[in-house]
Amino acid sequence: MLNLERIQKAQQRMKQQNIDAYLILTHDDYIYFFGEDRYQPRAIIPAEGQPIVVTFSGEEEEVRESLGVEDVRIFGSVGQQIKDVVQVMRGMIGKKEKLTIGVQMWFSTPAFLLNMFQRANPMVNVVDIASVMDELRMVKDASEIALMQRAAEIAVIGMETAVKTLKAGITENKVAAEIEYAMRKSGGHGVATPVFVNSGIRSGWLHGTASDKVIETGDLVVIDLVPRYKGYCANLCRTFVIGDPTVKQFNMFETYKSAQAAGIEALKPGAKMREIDAVAKQVFIENGYGDFYIAGISHSIGLSFEETPAPTIHPGDSGIQISDGMTVTVGHPVLSVPGTGGVRLEDTFHISNGAAQPLTAFPSELVL
Amino acid sequence: MLNLERIQKAQQRMKQQNIDAYLILTHDDYIYFFGEDRYQPRAIIPAEGQPIVVTFSGEEEEVRESLGVEDVRIFGSVGQQIKDVVQVMRGMIGKKEKLTIGVQMWFSTPAFLLNMFQRANPMVNVVDIASVMDELRMVKDASEIALMQRAAEIAVIGMETAVKTLKAGITENKVAAEIEYAMRKSGGHGVATPVFVNSGIRSGWLHGTASDKVIETGDLVVIDLVPRYKGYCANLCRTFVIGDPTVKQFNMFETYKSAQAAGIEALKPGAKMREIDAVAKQVFIENGYGDFYIAGISHSIGLSFEETPAPTIHPGDSGIQISDGMTVTVGHPVLSVPGTGGVRLEDTFHISNGAAQPLTAFPSELVL
Repeated sequence: MLNLERIQKAQQRMKQQNIDAYLILTHDDYIYFFGEDRYQPRAIIPAEGQPIVVTFSGEEEEVRESLGVEDVRIFGSVGQQIKDVVQVMRGMIGKKEKLTIGVQMWFSTPAFLLNMFQRANPMVNVVDIASVMDELRMVKDASEIALMQRAAEIAVIGMETAVKTLKAGITENKVAAEIEYAMRKSGGHGVATPVFVNSGIRSGWLHGTASDKVIETGDLVVIDLVPRYKGYCANLCRTFVIGDPTVKQFNMFETYKSAQAAGIEALKPGAKMREIDAVAKQVFIENGYGDFYIAGISHSIGLSFEETPAPTIHPGDSGIQISDGMTVTVGHPVLSVPGTGGVRLEDTFHISNGAAQPLTAFPSELVL
Repeated sequence: MLNLERIQKAQQRMKQQNIDAYLILTHDDYIYFFGEDRYQPRAIIPAEGQPIVVTFSGEEEEVRESLGVEDVRIFGSVGQQIKDVVQVMRGMIGKKEKLTIGVQMWFSTPAFLLNMFQRANPMVNVVDIASVMDELRMVKDASEIALMQRAAEIAVIGMETAVKTLKAGITENKVAAEIEYAMRKSGGHGVATPVFVNSGIRSGWLHGTASDKVIETGDLVVIDLVPRYKGYCANLCRTFVIGDPTVKQFNMFETYKSAQAAGIEALKPGAKMREIDAVAKQVFIENGYGDFYIAGISHSIGLSFEETPAPTIHPGDSGIQISDGMTVTVGHPVLSVPGTGGVRLEDTFHISNGAAQPLTAFPSELVL
């Protein structure tokens, strides 16, 4: 069912900012307003009036019923879909010369669709809708926290499976298969990023995936999980060693663990994102790893894996202040040392009652 | 290891079309040229000279070694990454006023990155690289067919698992979990689209996903699988009924099966994409379902789930001719009848020796 309160708040902001409508092309904001997901999330929220969902004729009845949306534009082909959107734009323009339409400008917005929309609607001026949506989505309500808590529990089940499965001789892909299966069986709805199982030289990668590489004794293995529950994400990352750690591996792990702990300690209402970075970096420096520190140890999380504030992507976000109700991870960037590999630990927190309350609860131990 | 022959062919076309470089932002073309995938596929192929891979410092050594690429630009943060790209652009412009840079304009190209690139490089004119890439990627070589054959075998394993798992009382999500697990365990590298398990009213959806809906006796269930193997996709879709089919369900299934067979029969070198649609639609009409026919029963497949020719997305592609070496699916759109549900069957073919050779081999039976 659509969330009228959220829609009204967005409309109020749109009016203040002279944005005529928000064209939704991504899953996160579609779920935020309509409470459920679709393979093709396409909707228009005008600054005034009823939201319009654009969907396929075979889904019309069900959309009307489940969302309680009156104006459902239906299409029988993809060509029709864009025509329907153009028609809505024409209906909105009235006596104006140009329409100002907000669009989300983030990774999952398809450049193809935005380009097609702009070519089909020359009377439209596209602006970034972040100025409307960021403030709304940054602070989560109780229903959102409950879904993120469930996602966090699913992440923990995934990590428990990793611990049971990891051993020398198994491929990264086999470990990922077991993790994914366990998370799905426990109610997860897929993942926001592919399950990372990065071992040996691959543990030092900034990102990763699961490959056909065989995990060997002595390997550092980074397991990074971002399961979804009803669209909402939680992030849990741990690093393990296969067999006995070397002194260097142990030192890197202890450094990261201390840096993460310092970051969590700093994660309080009123603190700026950059302060979390600063205390974590200090621990890296004190342990001789200052040159290996990558800025962005903390980012917001919710319907997207990384959302505003995300200094990990927008360095400017490092000036944003933490406040009660935000959900933030600590431990994002890898400590990557050429020749040894990488270490990462990441957890998800809910800022509540003046402190960071962990949503992901899993021990941080290097040795399996 | 990078594929020099493919790079040279692309460079030749770029020079003919006065495109100064191709900025790669998507997995498919990255894999096409470099033979492997990365979480952030970022590279520049200039019309002349060595390709440049943009990657994180911790991955530099491994990238150089595995790809055989000399010019690897490294970055220590995301801010650095865009600066590196700007630097390359400045180095390329010489005495020109504007650089013409090709970018893939498809669903997986992030609007966010393209927007950031354009703002950071005002001296750049962005054009669609399809005019270079489509012709290259449309015809597959033997190594590509081998990978798609493996992906097809993995899809068959997934569908066998679906048949074993489907029953009244189980949720769509549980069925998806078993399918995904079986495909991963047999060597699959994830999926190009989420596993669809669409039952009951949801079977009539144009697309779908797996939900928490409980599958019931009498439900039509559409299972649509697009596993990847080393980046390459194969598509296999089947529809089943739980329990005994009604006459209507049976008729819809038989209509779709006949329409698909007619399409496969028409899938020959020299035929245009629209001819496959025409014969399939004729079968729908003859069986009284003409009004329910959605254009686009066939699309090319390879490193992307849907790639040129894809009349399913670009109606203009329906004029493209089939030729030997192409890989094409038949059976894409749902036959959706309000009140009854939907039926879809889809298979992947390799055009070889003048006919459509199936890559996906699985019986089409409505009853489990």
